[in-house]
Amino acid sequence: MPATPFSRSFLISQPRFNHYINPIFRSVTHQLSSSPFPFNVKSSTVRFHCALSQAAETDSTSGGRSGALSPTPPVTGEVKKIDVNPPKGTRDFPPEEMRLRNWLFNNFKEVSRLYGFEEIDFPVLESEALFVRKAGEEIKDQLYCFEDRGNRRVALRPELTPSLARLVIQKGKSVSLPLKWFTVGQCWRYERMTRGRRREHYQWNMDIIGVPGVMAEAELISSIVSFFKRIGITESDVGFKVSSRKVLQEVLKCYSIPENMFGKVCVIIDKIEKIPVDEIKKELKALGLSQEAVQELLQVLSVKSLTELEERLGGSGEAIADLKQLFSLAEKFGYSKWLQLDASVVRGLAYYTGIVFEGFDREGKLRAICGGGRYDHLFSTFGADDIPACGFGFGDAVIVELLREKGLLPELSLQVHNIVCALDEELQGCAAMAANILREKGQSVDLVLESKPLKWVFKRAARTNAERLVLVGNSEWQRGMVRVKILSTGEQYEVKLDDLK
Amino acid sequence: MPATPFSRSFLISQPRFNHYINPIFRSVTHQLSSSPFPFNVKSSTVRFHCALSQAAETDSTSGGRSGALSPTPPVTGEVKKIDVNPPKGTRDFPPEEMRLRNWLFNNFKEVSRLYGFEEIDFPVLESEALFVRKAGEEIKDQLYCFEDRGNRRVALRPELTPSLARLVIQKGKSVSLPLKWFTVGQCWRYERMTRGRRREHYQWNMDIIGVPGVMAEAELISSIVSFFKRIGITESDVGFKVSSRKVLQEVLKCYSIPENMFGKVCVIIDKIEKIPVDEIKKELKALGLSQEAVQELLQVLSVKSLTELEERLGGSGEAIADLKQLFSLAEKFGYSKWLQLDASVVRGLAYYTGIVFEGFDREGKLRAICGGGRYDHLFSTFGADDIPACGFGFGDAVIVELLREKGLLPELSLQVHNIVCALDEELQGCAAMAANILREKGQSVDLVLESKPLKWVFKRAARTNAERLVLVGNSEWQRGMVRVKILSTGEQYEVKLDDLK
Repeated sequence: MPATPFSRSFLISQPRFNHYINPIFRSVTHQLSSSPFPFNVKSSTVRFHCALSQAAETDSTSGGRSGALSPTPPVTGEVKKIDVNPPKGTRDFPPEEMRLRNWLFNNFKEVSRLYGFEEIDFPVLESEALFVRKAGEEIKDQLYCFEDRGNRRVALRPELTPSLARLVIQKGKSVSLPLKWFTVGQCWRYERMTRGRRREHYQWNMDIIGVPGVMAEAELISSIVSFFKRIGITESDVGFKVSSRKVLQEVLKCYSIPENMFGKVCVIIDKIEKIPVDEIKKELKALGLSQEAVQELLQVLSVKSLTELEERLGGSGEAIADLKQLFSLAEKFGYSKWLQLDASVVRGLAYYTGIVFEGFDREGKLRAICGGGRYDHLFSTFGADDIPACGFGFGDAVIVELLREKGLLPELSLQVHNIVCALDEELQGCAAMAANILREKGQSVDLVLESKPLKWVFKRAARTNAERLVLVGNSEWQRGMVRVKILSTGEQYEVKLDDLK
Repeated sequence: MPATPFSRSFLISQPRFNHYINPIFRSVTHQLSSSPFPFNVKSSTVRFHCALSQAAETDSTSGGRSGALSPTPPVTGEVKKIDVNPPKGTRDFPPEEMRLRNWLFNNFKEVSRLYGFEEIDFPVLESEALFVRKAGEEIKDQLYCFEDRGNRRVALRPELTPSLARLVIQKGKSVSLPLKWFTVGQCWRYERMTRGRRREHYQWNMDIIGVPGVMAEAELISSIVSFFKRIGITESDVGFKVSSRKVLQEVLKCYSIPENMFGKVCVIIDKIEKIPVDEIKKELKALGLSQEAVQELLQVLSVKSLTELEERLGGSGEAIADLKQLFSLAEKFGYSKWLQLDASVVRGLAYYTGIVFEGFDREGKLRAICGGGRYDHLFSTFGADDIPACGFGFGDAVIVELLREKGLLPELSLQVHNIVCALDEELQGCAAMAANILREKGQSVDLVLESKPLKWVFKRAARTNAERLVLVGNSEWQRGMVRVKILSTGEQYEVKLDDLK
């Protein structure tokens, strides 16, 4: 084996692409003028060149360098800048976005806990089969699915309910019903990108498993109302359209439409505000519904009051009974002003069976804010015995649009208690000591890790909204003291290290 | 179009697979005896049958049913139970696991905030190119990568640092250095499954961007020590092996090994405790290192004291200077007993350039608990100017094993403040009213949503660790009162609804 097999240099002749992050730090970048992994940016994708093999063909002079070594390889040449954006339809959460996300999620979680729900989660990657239903749902065509290295068909979850059902079945008799579970998780849909539509979003779900009566739906809607109130949204901003899938079911029954068409009919009806009504009619007829049935269906769907619905369906059916009970409970829960009957609401998921609801902005500018309903037969589609269940999904996208629209987005800024700084490079370890004393007392500390002028320190303190500046100087330190400055008032004092708090 | 095109029944003759979730709820399952989507379970994967097309071939009698309609379709026949496990190598988080995860993550987050770090996040799905480096890292062969519907090569992130670098480059001059950022995010590796190895784990990362000196590494290690202390782990349980990649660099320099071999050498050296030393030698020789260089390298790597290392390398290099400074700062920070020099530590990622460290259990039973180091040249590999940076990753798996081993896992149980129950079905709305009064005052309430005997209510209260039982009975309600029972003492009293708190 040759002792110096690297007898070629690895030069690529193109000039280096210079993108300065921050001019302050240009000085530290001189050591290495490029890298071994040049990227060629081609539209939004990034492809690799193997610099090594390329270069080997273009130059074969000079030997192994013996000058100042830099730990990453010494290929001199072009490194094109990587695509700095996250994949299409996805988001980064830099600190300011993350603060908003945390604020939102904390409200989701706090409401869930006030309602006595327990938090759960599932893998973001599931078996594709868990999500593939044959009712023509939009969700199926938007599955982020692929085959893993073990040839399993897997998918990034487009929704959380199927995983919930899977977990409940897995737990079997080991859990006591009713279960009240919530989760806040990321979901993925490969959608065509339109304004405001992304390919991932987070969804808050609350589900009640094991309660057959409408009290469960009433409790779920109550929790959403509590959430709205917490974040400043009122009944004049938002309402809930409510219906029951049993309404459709009763109509279909009159026309002897087979039950296995039910999910498909619902999925078509759900598009009623998105596509022309003629298109809806065409699709329903293609399913095999008669002209008459389609006509009746569309008329019933246009009903906006419980009284009228009762006149049409008669008062004896379950649809009317459930809806009456829900409206009556809403009075007691105190949110009846938020509810309105709207028979056209069916929701787009095949598995709903009873009450369905949808949160909407009263100005009608936005898509549905949240939606849910009863799904008493989902478990049997997975081969288990059914359990009565209901739940809702509440995304993180539309609500933020609404809050922005209403001027209700909170102002959330970074806030540390202290900035701690050594006045002398040799005192940095001492500053660390002071910082850790404060941290052990629960105080957050931004420790200045370099030797910086005081002007820089004050600027940083302003940026981090620090309440106090703790200065570690030589003369104070020798007396076991540090200097503290309250930044809002300018007040200054010395304090013993042990008394710092 | 025929008015009744559904002239076939959809019967599959196999008997139904019965899996009872909970016998209590058998009664509610009678309506629907099966579903339209039978699953055939085949090992761990789930495949679909189209019941509709199958059935249509086997039977063509009977018409659309007009009996009791159930909202999901009426295919009678076998529905095999879905695979109830999450995909191989992934986890569900039922409530008890979720409480542990939240406890762990809250400790990660609280420590990060005490150190003045800001939380960030990135998509779990990134461009594959972001993670593909050519240094022979294990991580590359374990990428969960696929092509999306737009023919983009994407991957579930195996680590968080490349995304962080991408975001920093994207932010450019709009952010002020240094950045102190942390994140707790899920990462994926398609590993061969061995005991305790999963394909996903959550990782806590803290990174400091823009600080060239060793104070930054010292601060990071300090934050991990703070975390350990919070959760009851001491320096007798855990230590940090510390070295610098500059040690290797200085050795390679003596033997005129080209710099572009550096990453590859590090990746091989990282396997030193996992594969036989002869294998390491073979791989290093295959890279082109001479017998002599390999010998010297392995001897230096066996060094376990700073004094010996200084004797071997001489005292003038950066490696020794950095390490001396780190040990000196560790004294001030107060964690010097946690540190030990171990020249064999290099970490498995190609991009580290300076100080590297690794948290280990002193009993030597577990894999590394956490690891990190300086990566001053990562940014230039993405075509941007370099910024000095360091950080660490801390997984959620090994630490839980260690806590279990040490008997330090916290006892975390569900705890609600109140269970609220109506004594009469007609009073359920009133119970909801009482529940919401308590919730508005910040009290969590498990509202009983069905008519249940008191025995059941007490059992549930015991399971949820409720502190109080609030009973809504007719005679009290008419006086605007409810009955409260303190469950720990048995004390009972009546209280006005408005005075509930």
